[in-house]
Amino acid sequence: MTNYILANRKDNPYLPFGDHRGAPFYGKDILSVKQFSRADLDYIFGVAHEMRVMVERVGTFDLLKGKILANLFYEPSTRTSSSFTSAMERLGGSVIPINEVRYSSVSKGESLPDTVRTLECYADVIVLRHPEVGASVLAAKYARKPIINAGDGIGEHPTQALLDLFTIIEELHQVDGLTVTMLGDLKFGRTVHSLARLLSLFDIRLHYVAPEILRMPAEIIAELDAKGIPQSEHTRLEDVLAETDVLYVTRVQKERFENPEAYESVKGAYVITPETMKIAKQRMIVMHPLPRVNEISMELDDDPRAAYFRQMEYGLYVRMALLAMVLGKA
Amino acid sequence: MTNYILANRKDNPYLPFGDHRGAPFYGKDILSVKQFSRADLDYIFGVAHEMRVMVERVGTFDLLKGKILANLFYEPSTRTSSSFTSAMERLGGSVIPINEVRYSSVSKGESLPDTVRTLECYADVIVLRHPEVGASVLAAKYARKPIINAGDGIGEHPTQALLDLFTIIEELHQVDGLTVTMLGDLKFGRTVHSLARLLSLFDIRLHYVAPEILRMPAEIIAELDAKGIPQSEHTRLEDVLAETDVLYVTRVQKERFENPEAYESVKGAYVITPETMKIAKQRMIVMHPLPRVNEISMELDDDPRAAYFRQMEYGLYVRMALLAMVLGKA
Amino acid sequence: MTNYILANRKDNPYLPFGDHRGAPFYGKDILSVKQFSRADLDYIFGVAHEMRVMVERVGTFDLLKGKILANLFYEPSTRTSSSFTSAMERLGGSVIPINEVRYSSVSKGESLPDTVRTLECYADVIVLRHPEVGASVLAAKYARKPIINAGDGIGEHPTQALLDLFTIIEELHQVDGLTVTMLGDLKFGRTVHSLARLLSLFDIRLHYVAPEILRMPAEIIAELDAKGIPQSEHTRLEDVLAETDVLYVTRVQKERFENPEAYESVKGAYVITPETMKIAKQRMIVMHPLPRVNEISMELDDDPRAAYFRQMEYGLYVRMALLAMVLGKA
Repeated sequence: MTNYILANRKDNPYLPFGDHRGAPFYGKDILSVKQFSRADLDYIFGVAHEMRVMVERVGTFDLLKGKILANLFYEPSTRTSSSFTSAMERLGGSVIPINEVRYSSVSKGESLPDTVRTLECYADVIVLRHPEVGASVLAAKYARKPIINAGDGIGEHPTQALLDLFTIIEELHQVDGLTVTMLGDLKFGRTVHSLARLLSLFDIRLHYVAPEILRMPAEIIAELDAKGIPQSEHTRLEDVLAETDVLYVTRVQKERFENPEAYESVKGAYVITPETMKIAKQRMIVMHPLPRVNEISMELDDDPRAAYFRQMEYGLYVRMALLAMVLGKA
Repeated sequence: MTNYILANRKDNPYLPFGDHRGAPFYGKDILSVKQFSRADLDYIFGVAHEMRVMVERVGTFDLLKGKILANLFYEPSTRTSSSFTSAMERLGGSVIPINEVRYSSVSKGESLPDTVRTLECYADVIVLRHPEVGASVLAAKYARKPIINAGDGIGEHPTQALLDLFTIIEELHQVDGLTVTMLGDLKFGRTVHSLARLLSLFDIRLHYVAPEILRMPAEIIAELDAKGIPQSEHTRLEDVLAETDVLYVTRVQKERFENPEAYESVKGAYVITPETMKIAKQRMIVMHPLPRVNEISMELDDDPRAAYFRQMEYGLYVRMALLAMVLGKA
Repeated sequence: MTNYILANRKDNPYLPFGDHRGAPFYGKDILSVKQFSRADLDYIFGVAHEMRVMVERVGTFDLLKGKILANLFYEPSTRTSSSFTSAMERLGGSVIPINEVRYSSVSKGESLPDTVRTLECYADVIVLRHPEVGASVLAAKYARKPIINAGDGIGEHPTQALLDLFTIIEELHQVDGLTVTMLGDLKFGRTVHSLARLLSLFDIRLHYVAPEILRMPAEIIAELDAKGIPQSEHTRLEDVLAETDVLYVTRVQKERFENPEAYESVKGAYVITPETMKIAKQRMIVMHPLPRVNEISMELDDDPRAAYFRQMEYGLYVRMALLAMVLGKA
């Protein structure tokens, strides 16, 4: 499909008529955080919360029984791939795993449009991970079935941003009024860029804590500034941690620095330990997109404020919601 | 199993007695197009058409609920593997995907007979893709459960030939009386060889259009000649396109030519564009086994005569039919 | 979980209360053969036998419908992975296959504890194959959901030992009173070490037949000696074959020998042929963990005493039993 906003799909033979009346995302693609209004988010998170309740109550249920997901990963991502697989299976659907694209005929000169037009003969929805920016938009242009972008290079990874926001809602029961601090590599992390954009739909305050060379890009700051979001930049977490409701940690990679000394001089400031957390509120959360390496000490894992593993679980519910919605079953 | 024609399997504990009465392919292997009579084809395509109707009506149904397919791919083939996976899942069955044979203990010196005898402990049917000619016959000799050949080197790929023929039947509602033109690399393409053999069971006329060095092998021409099939060879598509009902396009690979000039001099004659199609009938179809690279222009994709993506979908129905048949459920 | 012996899991939200009353392995990890008492084995094999009866009768049934298994393989093992996949699918459950760990973000510096804590957000049970000794114990220490060790380096592979013992029980209907002969590489084979330990719970007699450099380790002999198990070492199979009830064959690898001559001089003594078997009992069985290369002649495959392919099938039943047990459904 060519556009974010599409009429309900008429040409899908797999769903009986009437199945999708009133289903606002039926047949649509999930390509970018930019496609969502605040009302859309309310709807998505409402469905995601229902998914949480159902999984906690019965584990799995047959909402998508008979539906097939093609999990098309041009680059490996066990975490995201497993999450979508589980989401489909917990809804009673099936998965076609396609993980070895680089070895297969799919990659031997075949264009992405041809690949998705082949796979939609076999599946009802396609989840696409691709190393090139814009791949999911291209795929959606040619596909009749819904495409869900599971990351396209340094471009978008909308389901990650949605699960990050859903985590905040489920953990803190609000977004408006919160102070969110983003820490670490804010320059290259598409995760924090997408989350910042989504958060700008809310009445929020943002702190950015990063080494000088890894600051939040000026265009994003300008974009949020135009929406009236209060933002401030810092190099020391201590300056803002005490007033933080959500601390979003990302990794500072040694390779980003020109010389090892520069890295050594800052790295300690971006590692979260129980000691660091002493000045933090009792009711706040620490998030991380995972995988982490050293940026959060394992000693913090038992702290109830450490939300990063629960964050993975919220991701399951968000992906269940999105799959059900685009297939007209939510 | 050692032979194409086998008694119904008595030793399969997974099917209750009586389940398979009157099921002519129950327990058999699918190894070669040579094993099918015209009556067999009528039966297979009748079942495949029923599968199409059911998928269009309900998407998925539980005909093979509880059955397990081992998808054993010694070389990658995303398209074929995904098609069989979808076929099994649309019938309510499950799949054991085995795609990494080259890394695994299966490949560490273990013989193919041992591998299939192990896998049939876990599965009810085995789909086998293997780089060596004759691999599926060897596997079938030792296996108690049905083997479906999904391509063995330059040998056979019977389900591809069956889906090609089924495409013609579903699109044009007949085979007898048609003129089929095969275009491109007719020397090395096992696809066109198998399809030509299957077509020879019908009252058909064949045109072969190929560069001199990629002509249809003499033994296949002789084989069809003995059956009274009218055949003619050409180097220019324009000579036969106007009377063609089915244009079957294959890729002409540069590597087949001794020098680049020879390739450059012919390649234009084997690329299908909207311009090429001006002299073709209004009611005819263009087929391609996919993946395509440049041999059919993407501008042709919206032409209703472009049947190559529908061809993929017909493949799903044929594979559903074959799985149901060998498991005694059709 | 940190210990072999654990209280029933209270924190699993996926199982309704009461589901697991009286289920002795509910929520536990399967890490080592050392964790099983003889009563445990009776219970496991009782359930495994029920699984066999059910599979033979109906093929598949929905005992674990809605449950999800994460099949986490850090090194490839098609046989074991396929067996667990089939076990879960024959019980109506679903599988998340994770086979490409070395390419994926899971392996990019992420710790095993983090990986399993992520995967348990998506799955109800984790099967783990890992090249390092102790990996499954480490995983179980951090996971809230059950971990099943599917092999950790030269350490343990408890489900293999259990299926070996179950094979003996199903084939010979007893263990007490039997004479078991282990043949081949007894020094490096974790399979024979684990099986010997399990057999020591029974009233059994053991013969070890191996080249001098591949003898059973002294510590295992001492361990069994302390339990009063009669053991004897030999270099020639003929000395003990006639009185053997179970002949357990393993491969003698050429690479274990310092020079080719040493290998050539012994290899013939460790290949089983129909000729070898002439002096064996009529009612006895030949086992092998597979894959075999040359150590058992293919001519023996039709001998009813050749139990190695049936052994694979018994493995399916044992793994079905374990999955059902740790998920509180047996």
